[in-house]
Amino acid sequence: MSDRVFINDVAARDGFQIEARWIETADKIAFIDRLSATGLAKIEATSFTSPKAIPNLADAADVMRGIRRAADVVYVALIPNAKGVERALDACTDELNFVMSASDSHGRANLRMTADQSLARFADMVRAAEGTSARLNASISTAFGCPFEGTVPAARVLEIVDRIEDLGIAGVTLCDTTGVANPLQVAALCEAVHERHPRIRLTLHPHNTRGMGLANALAAWQVGVRHFDAALGGLGGCPYAPGASGNICTEDLVHMFECMGVSTGVDLDALIATSETLPELIGHDVPGQVVKAGKADRRYPLPAAVAERQ
Amino acid sequence: MSDRVFINDVAARDGFQIEARWIETADKIAFIDRLSATGLAKIEATSFTSPKAIPNLADAADVMRGIRRAADVVYVALIPNAKGVERALDACTDELNFVMSASDSHGRANLRMTADQSLARFADMVRAAEGTSARLNASISTAFGCPFEGTVPAARVLEIVDRIEDLGIAGVTLCDTTGVANPLQVAALCEAVHERHPRIRLTLHPHNTRGMGLANALAAWQVGVRHFDAALGGLGGCPYAPGASGNICTEDLVHMFECMGVSTGVDLDALIATSETLPELIGHDVPGQVVKAGKADRRYPLPAAVAERQ
Repeated sequence: MSDRVFINDVAARDGFQIEARWIETADKIAFIDRLSATGLAKIEATSFTSPKAIPNLADAADVMRGIRRAADVVYVALIPNAKGVERALDACTDELNFVMSASDSHGRANLRMTADQSLARFADMVRAAEGTSARLNASISTAFGCPFEGTVPAARVLEIVDRIEDLGIAGVTLCDTTGVANPLQVAALCEAVHERHPRIRLTLHPHNTRGMGLANALAAWQVGVRHFDAALGGLGGCPYAPGASGNICTEDLVHMFECMGVSTGVDLDALIATSETLPELIGHDVPGQVVKAGKADRRYPLPAAVAERQ
Repeated sequence: MSDRVFINDVAARDGFQIEARWIETADKIAFIDRLSATGLAKIEATSFTSPKAIPNLADAADVMRGIRRAADVVYVALIPNAKGVERALDACTDELNFVMSASDSHGRANLRMTADQSLARFADMVRAAEGTSARLNASISTAFGCPFEGTVPAARVLEIVDRIEDLGIAGVTLCDTTGVANPLQVAALCEAVHERHPRIRLTLHPHNTRGMGLANALAAWQVGVRHFDAALGGLGGCPYAPGASGNICTEDLVHMFECMGVSTGVDLDALIATSETLPELIGHDVPGQVVKAGKADRRYPLPAAVAERQ
């Protein structure tokens, strides 16, 4: 049970995309370079979406080309369409993360596409990436529930995973976009995907909107999930999902696993030090807790008055 | 696995005790009366400590006498010594919650007593309560780790539970005072207590200092723990434990269990409505998340522009 977990930090994409303040390209690159040195398995560095849709990430190609590549880190970008595939490949992106919604209402709001339309587009995108060494992953938004439609049946998600696997995409990420999933639901859906798709590389992308983020990560880990998305500082949200708030916090997730004796490959001190740079970078405080409280093994001196009484 | 859980709200004690602002006795009573109507199993209403040590709860007797008793709610008070037992019994307290620390350094800082000294005092307190109908519980602070000493060995906690049971105290609460416990540690210690003390009523008192609060509650539930301490809004901390921050948030805990199909007996809407009164009562925002995001089944209307495009 204690084999290593693999963490994908999505702060530079899922976090920066909704920040009110423009973050300079050089600052994004410096931030990602610093993250690269912490031992994370993956970094979702940017999104090759239309600059009109996500102005904050209009510099996607410059960021992807500008970062220093660490040997063991997979650099990911979110990709909405075949043009995005071309731009991402041109910028030497290691992994292309296609995105769709399990619920048609959220798909229409976020991507102007139903699930069927997204899957048809995925086919074009797979073709556009053919013959390259890029890894492919598909993220399924609202996999546990939709802010417009409510519950999303597990059967629908499983059917979508069927179709993703049929397209030859090797990885699937189940996204709890608005933080509505509960631990039993997470465990059940992840187990069902593992059972039906034993070869799919399954990632969980929890949000902490209702405080259940780490509990959901724990529940997924208990049923064998070893890949997690998280955002440094707990940044994130979704511009087209009302009520969405931050991703689970990368350093809090790493801290929990390391406390449990589960290796993450991450230098937690370096990760915390990087998180400490966020408030200045984005201009506001972040929800992460370990960065404020210190690690669980933090020790304090006994107050002088108490020591004297002994 | 889905049998009911029992939740003890400690906001009026663990929360109010560290607030900067004095809360009027009438306001405390109104708050507890409102909580009483939500279906909680227990309410820790106050603490019969020295008013010099905890000035915020100097009105303990007035609060305990002033509240309206709901038939199904057990009203608890924290008790530090035999004089506290008398005062609490005099005010018709249902359950006396004795408190000690597993680590001597925290015991000295918080209570001016080592664990041995606390256990000797517990014997006096049990005698003082003899022949009354009051239920007895003992809370063990720093049961998972101490801010001064670091890790507290499980063997030490188990030995303390032995001695508590020998005193005839029926309930034990394991407190993660500074939020250092991790889910595997929580599960292991709770299982060990259950195994060694099958008749002890075991409660977990998690703090969310490092974001692991609900994950720890989940882990405890998975090994059969059915009693939890939590504070409305996520109030709380410990005045003598540096780095301690809020208890787990009652409404977030109830929400998680209810989403999991685990009954709490609590009217979540009434609980959330009560939590919404906290910022005005205490003069600042609270860390609870469900009160901000709404329940997981919250639905939003599809944006007009999206609806039009269909």
